[in-house]
Amino acid sequence: MAPRKIIIDTDPGQDDAVAILLALASPDEIDLLGITCVAGNVPLPLTSKNARIVCELAGKPDIKVFAGCDRPLGRELVTAEHVHGKTGLDGPTLPDPAMPLQPDHAVDFIVETLRREAPGSVTLCPLGPLTNIAMAFEKAPDIMARVAEIVLMGGAYFQVGNITPAAEFNIYVDPQAANIVFKSGVKLTVMPLDVTHKALVTAPRNDAFRALGTPVGVAVAQMTDFFERFDKEKYGSEGAPLHDPCVTAYLLRPDLFSGRVVNVEIETRSELTLGMTVADWWGVSGRSPNAMFIGDIDADGFFSLLTERLARL
Amino acid sequence: MAPRKIIIDTDPGQDDAVAILLALASPDEIDLLGITCVAGNVPLPLTSKNARIVCELAGKPDIKVFAGCDRPLGRELVTAEHVHGKTGLDGPTLPDPAMPLQPDHAVDFIVETLRREAPGSVTLCPLGPLTNIAMAFEKAPDIMARVAEIVLMGGAYFQVGNITPAAEFNIYVDPQAANIVFKSGVKLTVMPLDVTHKALVTAPRNDAFRALGTPVGVAVAQMTDFFERFDKEKYGSEGAPLHDPCVTAYLLRPDLFSGRVVNVEIETRSELTLGMTVADWWGVSGRSPNAMFIGDIDADGFFSLLTERLARL
Amino acid sequence: MAPRKIIIDTDPGQDDAVAILLALASPDEIDLLGITCVAGNVPLPLTSKNARIVCELAGKPDIKVFAGCDRPLGRELVTAEHVHGKTGLDGPTLPDPAMPLQPDHAVDFIVETLRREAPGSVTLCPLGPLTNIAMAFEKAPDIMARVAEIVLMGGAYFQVGNITPAAEFNIYVDPQAANIVFKSGVKLTVMPLDVTHKALVTAPRNDAFRALGTPVGVAVAQMTDFFERFDKEKYGSEGAPLHDPCVTAYLLRPDLFSGRVVNVEIETRSELTLGMTVADWWGVSGRSPNAMFIGDIDADGFFSLLTERLARL
Amino acid sequence: MAPRKIIIDTDPGQDDAVAILLALASPDEIDLLGITCVAGNVPLPLTSKNARIVCELAGKPDIKVFAGCDRPLGRELVTAEHVHGKTGLDGPTLPDPAMPLQPDHAVDFIVETLRREAPGSVTLCPLGPLTNIAMAFEKAPDIMARVAEIVLMGGAYFQVGNITPAAEFNIYVDPQAANIVFKSGVKLTVMPLDVTHKALVTAPRNDAFRALGTPVGVAVAQMTDFFERFDKEKYGSEGAPLHDPCVTAYLLRPDLFSGRVVNVEIETRSELTLGMTVADWWGVSGRSPNAMFIGDIDADGFFSLLTERLARL
Repeated sequence: MAPRKIIIDTDPGQDDAVAILLALASPDEIDLLGITCVAGNVPLPLTSKNARIVCELAGKPDIKVFAGCDRPLGRELVTAEHVHGKTGLDGPTLPDPAMPLQPDHAVDFIVETLRREAPGSVTLCPLGPLTNIAMAFEKAPDIMARVAEIVLMGGAYFQVGNITPAAEFNIYVDPQAANIVFKSGVKLTVMPLDVTHKALVTAPRNDAFRALGTPVGVAVAQMTDFFERFDKEKYGSEGAPLHDPCVTAYLLRPDLFSGRVVNVEIETRSELTLGMTVADWWGVSGRSPNAMFIGDIDADGFFSLLTERLARL
Repeated sequence: MAPRKIIIDTDPGQDDAVAILLALASPDEIDLLGITCVAGNVPLPLTSKNARIVCELAGKPDIKVFAGCDRPLGRELVTAEHVHGKTGLDGPTLPDPAMPLQPDHAVDFIVETLRREAPGSVTLCPLGPLTNIAMAFEKAPDIMARVAEIVLMGGAYFQVGNITPAAEFNIYVDPQAANIVFKSGVKLTVMPLDVTHKALVTAPRNDAFRALGTPVGVAVAQMTDFFERFDKEKYGSEGAPLHDPCVTAYLLRPDLFSGRVVNVEIETRSELTLGMTVADWWGVSGRSPNAMFIGDIDADGFFSLLTERLARL
Repeated sequence: MAPRKIIIDTDPGQDDAVAILLALASPDEIDLLGITCVAGNVPLPLTSKNARIVCELAGKPDIKVFAGCDRPLGRELVTAEHVHGKTGLDGPTLPDPAMPLQPDHAVDFIVETLRREAPGSVTLCPLGPLTNIAMAFEKAPDIMARVAEIVLMGGAYFQVGNITPAAEFNIYVDPQAANIVFKSGVKLTVMPLDVTHKALVTAPRNDAFRALGTPVGVAVAQMTDFFERFDKEKYGSEGAPLHDPCVTAYLLRPDLFSGRVVNVEIETRSELTLGMTVADWWGVSGRSPNAMFIGDIDADGFFSLLTERLARL
Repeated sequence: MAPRKIIIDTDPGQDDAVAILLALASPDEIDLLGITCVAGNVPLPLTSKNARIVCELAGKPDIKVFAGCDRPLGRELVTAEHVHGKTGLDGPTLPDPAMPLQPDHAVDFIVETLRREAPGSVTLCPLGPLTNIAMAFEKAPDIMARVAEIVLMGGAYFQVGNITPAAEFNIYVDPQAANIVFKSGVKLTVMPLDVTHKALVTAPRNDAFRALGTPVGVAVAQMTDFFERFDKEKYGSEGAPLHDPCVTAYLLRPDLFSGRVVNVEIETRSELTLGMTVADWWGVSGRSPNAMFIGDIDADGFFSLLTERLARL
């Protein structure tokens, strides 16, 4: 079978970096058509730089990287340096990228790729705020019917929020964009905090990355060391949740995940609950399902997959 | 030590009935000054009738029962006959009450009692929508400083909603009233669905009620048989959650419960998330704590207490 | 014909004072059953004092004056000392009242009066935030069908707001209460800023009050002198709008006013437009009419009436 | 002086058509760089067709016309066939256009034009929902600093809404886009209903168009005949308000208009008041001014200008 064509839309971020590395390590299954960057964890100049740093770390300087929107729809940008550090990739010391940014705008790359490739052949993998995806859908509504699937990291339900008591960061940063994407009718698979908080990098799991002894393995271990400081302190958990790699892992091994197809609406009106992903897990609302909301993960299987694949880079 | 003076504000409801029975079975610890009724699970004429049915079932026809508000603040009443049956007490066949309703309005009874009793000596125990309590606070703000504590059943957080994907029934019915109570500054202990869904009446636990062989034990078993049909079907759980008795059990045995003192805000503005209790469990908001939000229960201890006490009636 | 029985609910306020004086000067047409006070222009202790000052100024110390709610439903009180001065009655120097406040709560007086008097015989005249009225309707919903009519000062439409760009003060202070009253189904006549801003006390009109030479005439002139400073500076108008007297004048001479029966909804959800009276003047919404929204006044007729009546005190 | 470079963003619409004709008739003052079309009065296929019909009617088939967004940001499209007829240009019978649509997307044309032309040299003239403009600002934030000015038709204040009791059509259709534009910091001049309802095409004024005897004059008269049916019936006015031509007339003769520089916020959160332009006309909010809000027009001067210019086509 031909590898699955995907676009990763991202705001790296250490966990975004691991998600990208996992995709780059899996060329038999994943054909990464391009990486589109968005403002989120850190501002756009950093995310579009970090994406290239990660490609070069993986030895893949030919991957096309595009800069997209530098702010959410109608709101000030909120960033998360308190989690990711000033650069967004704090932890390892990695060289500035030599590879250039592509000249086109990320939104145009998404539109043109979906129009060029066969209908239903391209999967979108958003790992950050959904601004670029929403802008592409708004500018070129014809592409919505051509998307194979969206597999995204975002939202929270039983596990509740990380940026406010009700909202997860990616959705909170751009609730209007999330609303456009969740109402698009495109097939949607969501990795909320509920599942990503079950994908914790414990000490033995991080040791396994480090033990790879490769630049990638060591860098991932260092990123995770940095990243987990926040969660350990905040939630008292035993390690950092590896949010974004759940998305690329799902492409490779959907059997590691389970969830429910439910209705998910985005709160866009109330300041108190802004950006909440209201998932009708128990079917009390009568609203039509629009998303596969993932709730569980085989964490050991996930980390085995991750370690095995990172070893290939 | 003198028994603790309380007012139960309620909309029975089978689980309200058990909460009342537990209080009436515990005169050494609890001095039930009166029961105030509110519209909620079923309309006010039924809740104020049911409260008296329960008192008579317990052999306590001298308890003062007051009717209060028949609708929430500025909203249409939402009821829950789909859970509680047409009467609100479906299950057992119990005689109509002979004891009269008190002539005063529930709100006035609450105000006058708090003004008459020593400051800090009366605990309010709301088991339904918070309309009566909010009305009393609004009409007579001086009483807020005289309340010892409010221990209420309502809200949800990790466990999310039962009437909408975001809201628990009691708070959803009257979010404005809940907002007044949660902002009152009165000491507040909250039993949300998170804890009450851990107080499940499994078959052995219900058998223990029935095995008491008393009219009370049998009636409680029959109520629970009826009540649990809904939850088993909806959530696939092994039994009905006994929501409201958590409140009276907490008065008797606070050691059975654990939680966190956190900030809880009520969503009053968005239709999508209306009535949500936004509990800042992880302290991400910087808002001041205003409630002890209970998260865990020793369910075996709770059911032992309940069975042992119901046996006394 | 017997005089019309009314209750004035008020937060004096200079213009409230004139509205009360107009009622007291018109015993053939108006039977003032009582004055109920609410927090609004100034806090409750001042409004319930000012109402008595005004009764004594009119030589009517037997009028029953009741204190009601000291805060709006679920919101902090907003006051308007910037308009009315520290006392709420700045301008004349008037003695402290000797007459006592009635012991009952304003809400209870409203409820009991409506239950005691013949159905459809009592008109409510709210001149401030609608807290007391909403509380009475909420506590005793049976009284709603017994109200003859509500004639109130509040809201704004074409003339827009005075406390925010979208809201008039009385409604803004307690939007939840306003929502309850506007949805009550009781016959409703509304004097918005649109009409009260056409009832301007120009210099000749104020001279006419002063020229009465009576304590009442002089005090009214002094109150208006004080009151108009704000409007002249803010709006560049030629005099102060006499908001509240429009209500009592309407009882005496409805022919001086014209308006439309339209749908009016209260904005309760958005911070930006909170307390707006959204009046469907052009019938674009399809919502059912619930209020006579007054839009025009014969200002000369109004001031003639006022001067003529004040002369009787 | 060189003519002023403008882009008209539009959803014709009879009054849009007249606004375009006025611009095309004024080449000495206005250099129309292009027309960008958006969904609004009618769907995008019709607005992008109608814009070309109008150019050909004016004998200007070389004007570049671009299609843009076919729906607002995150909302269903609302249209106004009840005002404009099925085609959006009902009234005259005009031939289908022979001139082609430009291949580029309207948003890209706006971005590229602003980047290509000298900073501060291009004025944007939106006559419909602000979707295209907001998308361009979102995709390419650098262009905001390069816009000379935005002169738009939209909003309402004293004159209130035409599509809901609180909102004017253009802003109501895409409140999120309006919010982006009003918060952009770009110099903003707004023609709300308050002014456009003073630009009524009375019978003599329409006769003057018809008396031109030219195809343009006759078509404008026929469009206005059709258009005014709605307003006459709805508002009882003496003729149709010529909303959009106020924008182009302002470019030619700003002295015909007067207004205030005030703060204008867009209501995006409440269903009841959605799309309202909350203009702080009296400066009660303390918020910073962000728009010249036009309130008055010399209507006779406006119609003289219009007739005189249309005669040139």
